[in-house]
Amino acid sequence: METKQLIMLPGPTNIPTRVANAMLRPIINHRGPEFRELHSRIIDNAKYVFGTKNDLFVLTASGTGGVECAVRNISSPGAKIIVAVNGVFSQRFYESVNLLGGKGIEVPVEWGNAATVAQIEEVLKKNSPVTAVAIIYNETSTGVTTPHLKEIGELCRKHGALFLVDAISIQGGVPLPVDEWGVDVCITGSQKCLMTPPGLALISVSPKGWEVIKKAPRSYYFDLQLCKQFWDEKKETPYTPAVTLFYALDEALQMIREEGLEARFKRHAICADAMYAAVEAMGLELYARKEVRSNTVLAIKYPSGIDDKNFRGALNKKYRVVVAGGMGKTHGQLFRIGVMGSVSQFEILATATAIESVLTEQGHKLKPGEGVTAAREVFAKPS
Amino acid sequence: METKQLIMLPGPTNIPTRVANAMLRPIINHRGPEFRELHSRIIDNAKYVFGTKNDLFVLTASGTGGVECAVRNISSPGAKIIVAVNGVFSQRFYESVNLLGGKGIEVPVEWGNAATVAQIEEVLKKNSPVTAVAIIYNETSTGVTTPHLKEIGELCRKHGALFLVDAISIQGGVPLPVDEWGVDVCITGSQKCLMTPPGLALISVSPKGWEVIKKAPRSYYFDLQLCKQFWDEKKETPYTPAVTLFYALDEALQMIREEGLEARFKRHAICADAMYAAVEAMGLELYARKEVRSNTVLAIKYPSGIDDKNFRGALNKKYRVVVAGGMGKTHGQLFRIGVMGSVSQFEILATATAIESVLTEQGHKLKPGEGVTAAREVFAKPS
Repeated sequence: METKQLIMLPGPTNIPTRVANAMLRPIINHRGPEFRELHSRIIDNAKYVFGTKNDLFVLTASGTGGVECAVRNISSPGAKIIVAVNGVFSQRFYESVNLLGGKGIEVPVEWGNAATVAQIEEVLKKNSPVTAVAIIYNETSTGVTTPHLKEIGELCRKHGALFLVDAISIQGGVPLPVDEWGVDVCITGSQKCLMTPPGLALISVSPKGWEVIKKAPRSYYFDLQLCKQFWDEKKETPYTPAVTLFYALDEALQMIREEGLEARFKRHAICADAMYAAVEAMGLELYARKEVRSNTVLAIKYPSGIDDKNFRGALNKKYRVVVAGGMGKTHGQLFRIGVMGSVSQFEILATATAIESVLTEQGHKLKPGEGVTAAREVFAKPS
Repeated sequence: METKQLIMLPGPTNIPTRVANAMLRPIINHRGPEFRELHSRIIDNAKYVFGTKNDLFVLTASGTGGVECAVRNISSPGAKIIVAVNGVFSQRFYESVNLLGGKGIEVPVEWGNAATVAQIEEVLKKNSPVTAVAIIYNETSTGVTTPHLKEIGELCRKHGALFLVDAISIQGGVPLPVDEWGVDVCITGSQKCLMTPPGLALISVSPKGWEVIKKAPRSYYFDLQLCKQFWDEKKETPYTPAVTLFYALDEALQMIREEGLEARFKRHAICADAMYAAVEAMGLELYARKEVRSNTVLAIKYPSGIDDKNFRGALNKKYRVVVAGGMGKTHGQLFRIGVMGSVSQFEILATATAIESVLTEQGHKLKPGEGVTAAREVFAKPS
C-alpha cells in the first residue's frame, strides 16, 4: 500500500488540503483584473504577517532568489554588508555578498550559537560606514534563532546602516514584527512557516531601504525598483508570476489570518517545546544552545551508535516520517526536524513515536514511551 | 453563474486537468530519492522535446529568469552578444545583455519581420570575435517566428560564436531540434507550449556552451555550473525547486511524449492555420508578414473603429475568451492570440465565434459566420 509521508523537514512542509486545492483554480491573465485583485489580497495579508506597512513583493523564485534580490539591490560596488555567520545558510549569505557586488564582513559565531548585540556593535564601529547588517534570524542548518533583533535594529539606526533580516525558515512561525523591530529588508520563503509549496520568495523594503536601493546598480530578474513600479502603477509583477503558487499563497495567508498570528506563534512554541521535551526524554542532546534554540527547526545530535543514513532511512521507510540530516560540517552528526506551518500535536506525537521506535530498533537505550509521554505532557499543560 | 474563462493568451495557457491534478501530489523531500526520480524523468522527457543530448536544467523562475541565466553565464566582461531585435522581447533581451555584464550588438529588424541569415552574417563579420548570437525564435509581441535557424547555427559555428535561442513562447509547439540545428543554449518557459503553469524555465547547454561558461564570472541564484554539479552528483537542484510545478511539468511532458512531437507540431500548425483563416475571412490584417508569421502567437491588427479596451473587454466579459493586447509601440493597435499547448479545434472555433460576435456588435462589417466557416474548412481538410 502507498502510505502518505509525514514531511517534518525544515521546509518544504506539509501543505494543508485547502492550500493544495487552491492550485486547481483555473489560470488567469496576469495582466488582467482578476490577477490584480488576487495580488492585492496577497500583499495585504503578507503585510499583516510581516507586521509592516512597508512595500512588500512576491518573487517567482525560491528563498535563495530572495537573498540574491536583497543583496543585489542594496549593493553599490564595494558596499559593506556585515553578516553574522553561525551556520551553512549564513555562510552562503556572506559569500553571496562578495559575489553580488558588495563586500561581506563576517561576524564569526560558533555554530549552535548566535551573535550578540555587543559583537555586532563592535564590528559596526570598526567598519563604519556600513551599508547593512544582515542577520539570518533562523539558521536552518543548526536550529538557532538569533535573539535581540529589536536591539540590533536600534544599533543599525544609530550607525546609519540598513537592517536586513533573512527570515526564510521562520517568518509566520515566531514573532518578527518588521516595523516595530526596525527591519529595513525582510525576506522569507513560501515553503516554510507559510505552509505553501516552494517557488515564491517574499521581500519587504522600508523607505530607508529604498534610499539605498535607488543609488545601487539595477538588477534584471530581481529588480526591486521595477517591482515597485509595476505594483504602484498596476498591481502587477514585472514578469510572469507563478500564478498557481500565488493561489496557494493566497489561501495559506487567509488561513493565517483566520488563525491569528498570536495563536499561530503559540502553536509553534508549544509544538517545539513538546518535540524538545520528547527528544530530551529519549536522552538526546540538542546541537543549539538552549537559550537560542529555534521554535521552527530542531537540530538534534545523534547518540553514539546511531548512523545518520540508517536512522533516517528506517524513519522514512518503516514509519513514513521524513526529517533532514546535517549540513556542511555537521553532516552525519545530527538530524533536523521542521516545526512549521500547519504543524500540530498530531505531527509531533507521530514523529516522536517514530523516532523512539527507530532509536530502540537501532540499539539506543531508552525507556519505551518516555519521549512520547514527555511530549504529551507539554500539550496537556493548561495554557 | 461563474463561467470558466478560455485563456487564449500567448502564455500562460489553459492547463489540462491531468497537469493541474498532478500538483496535488504530496510534497516530497527535494533531497531524497523520490525527487531524484521525478527530476530525472523530467530532464529525460524535456531532452526529448528539445531534441538534445546536451545538459538541460529546470530553473525555479519565469522565462525572464531563464534569459538572465543564459546571458549572465556566458558573459565575461565586455563579451559581445549579437541580438536580432524585432519586438519587445528581443529588445528586452538586447538590453539585458548590457545590464548583465556583456556588450549587446543589435541587428535592427522592422517589427513584424525577422532577421535574415545575410543580416546576421554581416554583423558577425563586422564585430568578430563575437561570443554569441541570440535569436528570439518567436517574438511574442509581434507574432513573428524567425526562419532559417539551422543556417544561422552553421554561421555561428563558422565564426566561433555560440548560438543562443530564446524559444520561450514556441519550444514544444513548432520544430526546434536543438542538436540538429546547432543550438548551444536554448531557453523555454513552462507556461507556453509546455502547457504547465508559469514559474519554471528550461535551459539546455552544449559542450561548446560550457567552454564559454567556465571562463565567465559565476552567477548566484542562476549559476549553471552549480546546477551541473548538483545534477551530475545527485540529480538534485542547488536550491529548493518548486516541487508542485515540477509535478505539473512532469505530467505535461509525459502527455507530450504520448502525443508525439510530430503530431503535436501538426496540431499547432492546423490550429494556427484555422485561426489565421478565420481572422482573414473577417477582413482583419496580420501584424506579421505572412512568410514569418508564427504558429503559436498570432498578432492581429484592429480594423478601424474597433477599440482595444472595448474589444478585449467584451470578449472577456460576454464571451469569456481572454486574448492579449499589443505591447510597446503596438499597444492599442493589435490583439494577440496564443495557439499553444493543449489547443484544439474546440478552442479555435470558440475563439473565432467570440471574435466575430464582438466585432459585429462593435460595428465592424463582416459576413456573419464567414470567419468560423473558414476555420472549420481548415480542420475539415484531409491531412
